[in-house]
Amino acid sequence: MAEKKSWVLMVTAQTPTNIAVIKYWGKRDESLILPINDSISVTLDPSHLCTTTTVAVSPGFTHDRMWLNGKEISLSGGRYQNCLREIRSRASDVEDEKKGIKIAKKDWENLHLHIASYNNFPTAAGLASSAAGFACLVYSLAKLMNVKEDNSQLSAIARQGSGSACRSLYGGFVKWIMGKDDNGSDSIAVQLVDEKHWDELVILIAVVSSRQKETSSTSGMRETVETSPLVLHRAKEVVPKRVVEMEEAIKSRNFPAFARLTCSDSNQFHAVCLDTSPPIFYMNDTSHRIISCVEKWNRSEGTPQVAYTFDAGPNAVLIARNRKVAALLLQRLLFHFPPQSDADLNSYIVGDKSVLMDAGIQDLKDVEALPPPPEIKDNVPTQKFKGDVSYFICTRPGRGPVLLTEESQALLNPETGLPK
Amino acid sequence: MAEKKSWVLMVTAQTPTNIAVIKYWGKRDESLILPINDSISVTLDPSHLCTTTTVAVSPGFTHDRMWLNGKEISLSGGRYQNCLREIRSRASDVEDEKKGIKIAKKDWENLHLHIASYNNFPTAAGLASSAAGFACLVYSLAKLMNVKEDNSQLSAIARQGSGSACRSLYGGFVKWIMGKDDNGSDSIAVQLVDEKHWDELVILIAVVSSRQKETSSTSGMRETVETSPLVLHRAKEVVPKRVVEMEEAIKSRNFPAFARLTCSDSNQFHAVCLDTSPPIFYMNDTSHRIISCVEKWNRSEGTPQVAYTFDAGPNAVLIARNRKVAALLLQRLLFHFPPQSDADLNSYIVGDKSVLMDAGIQDLKDVEALPPPPEIKDNVPTQKFKGDVSYFICTRPGRGPVLLTEESQALLNPETGLPK
Repeated sequence: MAEKKSWVLMVTAQTPTNIAVIKYWGKRDESLILPINDSISVTLDPSHLCTTTTVAVSPGFTHDRMWLNGKEISLSGGRYQNCLREIRSRASDVEDEKKGIKIAKKDWENLHLHIASYNNFPTAAGLASSAAGFACLVYSLAKLMNVKEDNSQLSAIARQGSGSACRSLYGGFVKWIMGKDDNGSDSIAVQLVDEKHWDELVILIAVVSSRQKETSSTSGMRETVETSPLVLHRAKEVVPKRVVEMEEAIKSRNFPAFARLTCSDSNQFHAVCLDTSPPIFYMNDTSHRIISCVEKWNRSEGTPQVAYTFDAGPNAVLIARNRKVAALLLQRLLFHFPPQSDADLNSYIVGDKSVLMDAGIQDLKDVEALPPPPEIKDNVPTQKFKGDVSYFICTRPGRGPVLLTEESQALLNPETGLPK
Repeated sequence: MAEKKSWVLMVTAQTPTNIAVIKYWGKRDESLILPINDSISVTLDPSHLCTTTTVAVSPGFTHDRMWLNGKEISLSGGRYQNCLREIRSRASDVEDEKKGIKIAKKDWENLHLHIASYNNFPTAAGLASSAAGFACLVYSLAKLMNVKEDNSQLSAIARQGSGSACRSLYGGFVKWIMGKDDNGSDSIAVQLVDEKHWDELVILIAVVSSRQKETSSTSGMRETVETSPLVLHRAKEVVPKRVVEMEEAIKSRNFPAFARLTCSDSNQFHAVCLDTSPPIFYMNDTSHRIISCVEKWNRSEGTPQVAYTFDAGPNAVLIARNRKVAALLLQRLLFHFPPQSDADLNSYIVGDKSVLMDAGIQDLKDVEALPPPPEIKDNVPTQKFKGDVSYFICTRPGRGPVLLTEESQALLNPETGLPK
């Protein structure tokens, strides 16, 4: 089905994923994806977790097509259609002098697109792949079609693909303002600080094995809004204050306040899930054990060393106040959650391996030799939970979307516009 | 240390435990144990879960002493002292003509007590042993000392030993009215309906194995009140409406409404525990699986068959609408949570064994032969969790406190006043 004809114009972009530290849970408008409260996230380093998307246009394309991780998927869903329609409506004249291509603003309505998208992390791991995915789709299409809007305005489009996607249009710490307008035009993301502002932070993600099928966040948050007697109190009375405090904590790099707010808000999000009818459980015993381990350590240090937050799944996202703390955290996590005996340490800890070196761990023997953390009381038997964590990702706060200009990084063939 | 001198006067009573269907969580006065909301409970059949207490008085006793499950324990704690003081201050003249004993009202201040208490269920299993225990202590002392107050007035004394104890002064369904007075005099239990009102109900308790040390409910609820931004909204806005609806559901034996309220309120109690800082987890993966099993079945039947509720621990209390449903429920529970291969079925299902017979299960082979419940979709692999439940107790709503008049049922020796 090679559709070579005249020319193919392409753009490739890379967009990070993000993790909310003040949670988004609940929509006031299902189709526009307008939330019931502001949320705040930290963008994760795209070297370890990102989506790469190539979008291409050609007069030879007969219809819009998309490939996700190499497999063709349907674009007929409302969320894709909303993003494509909104971006097309903002397209401008495009000229590529080198290739001799000229596309007038009005032509875009009749031109078809090919889209190829790839996550550098397992899609199934519950790591907000749709956030990075829709952000990257909108960002790359905006560049291809010479859309003049800035990233905040683009965020309102990405939001219509997946709510949390709007926060992936920026690096560092990002606030999604819920907005007031019925049409959603003021429900946008803004950057609070860039990724250099608080670059001491280290982020460890524990990808937790799960046997349960999880409730999708779309249906989960709808059921919460419909049935939880607590969620509106959270959205109206609790979150607005926390957002103010969180902005202040981030701007002043006040880690104790940041950790307190992050942990409390994660727990409250899971509390309203539990208050849903029927109840939604995203955390499991392993998630609870990781929380207990962090809480115990924080208490013993007198001031928080690590913040934890959990999205709509059992994976723990742990934010260490600095590199030294991250190494001590990794020691604790590996003590409680060692890899299976036949595991390869190199695939058990992925991402920024330097944290592993700082922790003085080179092989499985070093893991086995880890002493119990000193904060564990002598009268409590130390427990180990081999196999309960699938793997760890070491990362940090990262940058926003970027264009990848090298043709070798494109996911579509520049001649055919089909996946490489 | 036998303290035989002149005479010993004894009373023995038996008091049930109870399980809240609208939860008590949070005090407005720590020392008087005054709650932040009303609660409603069902009293459990004392044949399966109860405390028996013998209280004795003798001029030969040199100080107040107590034995719990055969082991001497200290009475110096404030909760015991409050109950003893309040009961003593209400004592009246007592005369036992047969034994030729006369105790004047004023003598009680100078007489010492021996108390022996015994739970017919494992104290460590997290089955509200303190509720039955304090209720039985207060009830038996009131009988011994000829206290004229009725059970509601006694409930205000038992409440000062353990909040939920006040609800064990009655059988059937019981409401603990939070009250308004600062001195707690109107924070009392009243019976809504007796145990015969809704005698179709069958109660199955899954005693869940737990490796975690649990937060005590005393410190847990204090931390929730101090740190949860949701708990006061629950107490002030949510519970009052639920109490009205629950009373109506109980009085009209409206099982669907009863089940909806019971499940929602249990989940909301655990939600505010999770909203506590640091978070409190009482339910574990096994608790979650039991909830999922019940929710799935209820949904497939179109109307609730079973209600679930969890106290400050992982044990599930399941209330089936009738005996037939209880048998079907037990089949489902045994399918998912079979006993260990070397287990004795007779000690895996305790209490009212007739439910086991109704379920058509006579031995372990019958358990192994159980088919997957029809509501489980074919595309979901059926999972079994052998060993995750320690045992099941089959019981039903039961009566309130009673006196045991046969001397053979006393826990103290009528001559020495010491444990038999």
